[in-house]
Amino acid sequence: MSIKIEQVQFQNNIVDVAIQGNRIARIAPQLSGEFEQTIDGRGKLLTAAFYNTHCHAAMTLLRGIADNLELFDWLNNYIWPAEAKLTREAVYIGSKLAILEMIKSGTVFFNDMYFMPQETVRAVEEMGVRAAIGMIAIDTTTADKRAQYARDCQELWEKRRDFSDRIQLTLAPHAIYTVGEKALRNIAERAASDNLIIHTHLAETLREVEECQALHHLSPVAYLDKLNLLNERTLAAHAVHLSDEDIELLKAKKVTVAYNPCSNYKLSSGRFRFRSLADRGVRITFGTDGCASNDNLSMFDEMKFGSLGAKNEQNSSTACSAGEILQCASQHGAEAFGIDAGVIAEGKLADMLLIDLDVPCMVADHDLVSNLVYAADSSCVDTVICNGRILMQNRIVPGEKEIIAQARKLCRTLR
Amino acid sequence: MSIKIEQVQFQNNIVDVAIQGNRIARIAPQLSGEFEQTIDGRGKLLTAAFYNTHCHAAMTLLRGIADNLELFDWLNNYIWPAEAKLTREAVYIGSKLAILEMIKSGTVFFNDMYFMPQETVRAVEEMGVRAAIGMIAIDTTTADKRAQYARDCQELWEKRRDFSDRIQLTLAPHAIYTVGEKALRNIAERAASDNLIIHTHLAETLREVEECQALHHLSPVAYLDKLNLLNERTLAAHAVHLSDEDIELLKAKKVTVAYNPCSNYKLSSGRFRFRSLADRGVRITFGTDGCASNDNLSMFDEMKFGSLGAKNEQNSSTACSAGEILQCASQHGAEAFGIDAGVIAEGKLADMLLIDLDVPCMVADHDLVSNLVYAADSSCVDTVICNGRILMQNRIVPGEKEIIAQARKLCRTLR
Repeated sequence: MSIKIEQVQFQNNIVDVAIQGNRIARIAPQLSGEFEQTIDGRGKLLTAAFYNTHCHAAMTLLRGIADNLELFDWLNNYIWPAEAKLTREAVYIGSKLAILEMIKSGTVFFNDMYFMPQETVRAVEEMGVRAAIGMIAIDTTTADKRAQYARDCQELWEKRRDFSDRIQLTLAPHAIYTVGEKALRNIAERAASDNLIIHTHLAETLREVEECQALHHLSPVAYLDKLNLLNERTLAAHAVHLSDEDIELLKAKKVTVAYNPCSNYKLSSGRFRFRSLADRGVRITFGTDGCASNDNLSMFDEMKFGSLGAKNEQNSSTACSAGEILQCASQHGAEAFGIDAGVIAEGKLADMLLIDLDVPCMVADHDLVSNLVYAADSSCVDTVICNGRILMQNRIVPGEKEIIAQARKLCRTLR
Repeated sequence: MSIKIEQVQFQNNIVDVAIQGNRIARIAPQLSGEFEQTIDGRGKLLTAAFYNTHCHAAMTLLRGIADNLELFDWLNNYIWPAEAKLTREAVYIGSKLAILEMIKSGTVFFNDMYFMPQETVRAVEEMGVRAAIGMIAIDTTTADKRAQYARDCQELWEKRRDFSDRIQLTLAPHAIYTVGEKALRNIAERAASDNLIIHTHLAETLREVEECQALHHLSPVAYLDKLNLLNERTLAAHAVHLSDEDIELLKAKKVTVAYNPCSNYKLSSGRFRFRSLADRGVRITFGTDGCASNDNLSMFDEMKFGSLGAKNEQNSSTACSAGEILQCASQHGAEAFGIDAGVIAEGKLADMLLIDLDVPCMVADHDLVSNLVYAADSSCVDTVICNGRILMQNRIVPGEKEIIAQARKLCRTLR
C-alpha cells in the first residue's frame, strides 16, 4: 500500500508526505511518483496520533450507568452487577465502540485491561488500530472466575502468533490489593522471561496507600519494587499518591506512569504530581481509564485536564507547557510500548492525524500546539492513519453506523 | 416563520415540536399542519441550548498567543500589546469567530465585556444569537482611553432602540481594582434607574482579596455590597475566593455567579466553592471567559471541568450531579438574564439543540444527561435554533468558511 498526502501543513511548512507500506517514506516540499491513494492535505495540519496508555475499552457499554455515587456504592450496586452480565459478544461490541470513539478523537493505540480479552483482540484486528492487551489477573474473586480469567489468558497466549503486529500482550495484575504477593512474584518472573510489559493500577487512592503501609510497611511503589515488578517495561496507571522517595524509585527503575486526570478528578482520587515527576525525568503518558469513570475516551480531554489540573494543583500558571503535554499524549505513549512512532519523521511507522485547520478552535493560529492542547476537541480530527492504513477520512469511519446500532442495543441488556 | 421538528427524542419520548415565530408552540407525539421548514429529528436528542454568562468574545483572535507564563508577564508582554493593535474591524471579526465557535458547540447567548462593543453588537445581529453587551468601565488606563470607552458606551446606549430584542446592554465595571469607588457608586445608581444588569469580575484572585482587605477592610463581596452593587441583577464572574459570610451575602442579595472553571484552572486562580454556593441556593451559571485563558468557548468543557473540578476540590465523588451541572449551563444562565428560555416547554422562547445520538460518546444511552455533561463535545451538536431561527443544521453554519478565513488573516496582524 502506498499513500501520498499532498500539500499538508507540517510544523511551519507545507509538504507532501509519502507512505510506503506501514512507514513514512518521504517528507518533502513536492513528491512525484505513483501512489495507490492520494489525500488532499490542504487546510490540514499533520501531527502525531495519540497513544492511550490506560484503558478498559469495553466499559463504553457502561457509560453513564451511574453518576454521583460513593466509590463502593458505585462499584457494588452498579458496575459489578452490570459487569456480571457481560458476554463475550458484549466485550467485542463494547471494544469496537471504544475503538470507534478513539479513532474519531485521534487515538491509534490503547493499553487495555479487561475481561475476555480475546474479544478485544478481535475488535482491534477488525478496526485497524494498535493495542496492548492485558492478560488480566485478579485474585479477589470466586475460584470459578479466577479459573476463567486464567483460561482466557492462556487462550490469548497460545494464539499470540496469529495476531497482527499491531497487537502485543501484557501481563496485567489488576492492583496490589486484588492480587496476592505470590502471584505478583510469579508475574514478575514471567515478565522477565517472556519480555512482557506489566500493566497495573498503582497508588490510585489514599486507601490503597494506607492499607499497603499497614500490611507491608511499605508504600505501594516500594512494595512492587520489593517484588521485582518495577522496571523499564512497567506501566503504572494513576500513580496519584506518591512520596518523593516513590518518585525517585520510579525514576531509578525507569517505570512509565499513565496520568488519568479525568478519572482521577471524577473519582476524586487525589492530585497527580505532574511537575515533580516530569522534573525528575519520569516518563509521563496519558490514559483515559474506562468510560464508567471519565466518561469518554478523548485524549483531548485528558490533555486539557492534565495540563490545567497540573497548573491548578501547583498554584502556578507555568506548571507545564502545551508542548510537553502533547508529547506525553503522543511520543511518550508510543515509546513506552516500543512502537516506532509518536513523532512524524521519515522512517517512522505511519501513525498520524490530519487536523482540520478551518474550524474555529484552530483559529487564531498563533500557536497550533497550544490550540491542540487547550482548544481542540474531536471535531477537529479529519483523518486518522495507523500503520500506513487510513482508518478515518473526512471524519467517516467505515461501518460506524452499524457499530453504534449494535452497541446501543447491547448496552440495554446490562441495565 | 414556522418550523416543525419531526420525531425527535425529548427526555424519554419521541415527539414532534412546532415552533411559531420565536416560541415553542406545541410539543406532542404527532403534529399536523403547514410549516415553512421541517427538520428530521430522528436519531437526535432535543435539549436546551447553553447560555455563556461571562465572555470576552473578540479575544478569539488572541487564542494561543502566549502560553505557560506568569499572569503579569502574560498581560504586560503579550495580551496588552496585542490588544493595543485591535481595530474595530478586529473586534467585529473576532466576535464573529467567537459566535461561530459558540454556535458550533451549542451556545446561543453570551454575556460579553470587551472594547469597542458596538462591533460585537454588529456581529451578534448578523449571526443571530443572543447577547448581553457590556458598557465597559476601566479607570486604570490613560485619559484618552477612558474617554474612548465612554464615547463607545454612549454610542451603544444611544443606538439601543435599534437593536433586535436578542440584545440587551449591561453596565460592566471591569473589577474593583480597576474601577474607583466613585465610578462604582455611579454605576450602582444608573443600574437602578435604568434597570440594567451589572457584569463585573469579582473575587477572582487572592491578590484582589488581599488588596481589598488592605484598602477597604472588607472582602470584595462586602465592598461591592457597601457600594450598592449587589442585587438580583448583578452577575459576578469568577467568585473564586469567598468566605462563608460572602456566600451568605451573595445569597441574601440574590446575586448570580458565573463559574469559569477552565479559566480558573489555567490561571490557577483558586478553587470555586460549588457545593457551598449551590447548597446555599446561590444561582450558579457557567462562563467560558476569553479565549486567551481557556482557550476555547465550549460549554461542554466548562461543564466537565466544573463538575469534575468540584468533585476533586471537595474530595468527594458526590459533590454534584450531572443534572444540576446541565441546569447551570442552560436554565440558570437564561434566568439570570431574563431570557424566557433555558428549558424546553410550550410557550418558551425557541432556543434549542438537536444532539446527534448516533455518535460514540452518546452510546451507551443509560443516562443521556450524564453523557452530555461528561462525555460529549462539540462534535455531537447537529442543529442549533435560537429565537425560532435555525443557526446551524447538519453542523453547517452559513458563511463559516469566510469568517474563518477573515479571522485567520486578521489575527496575524496582532502578533
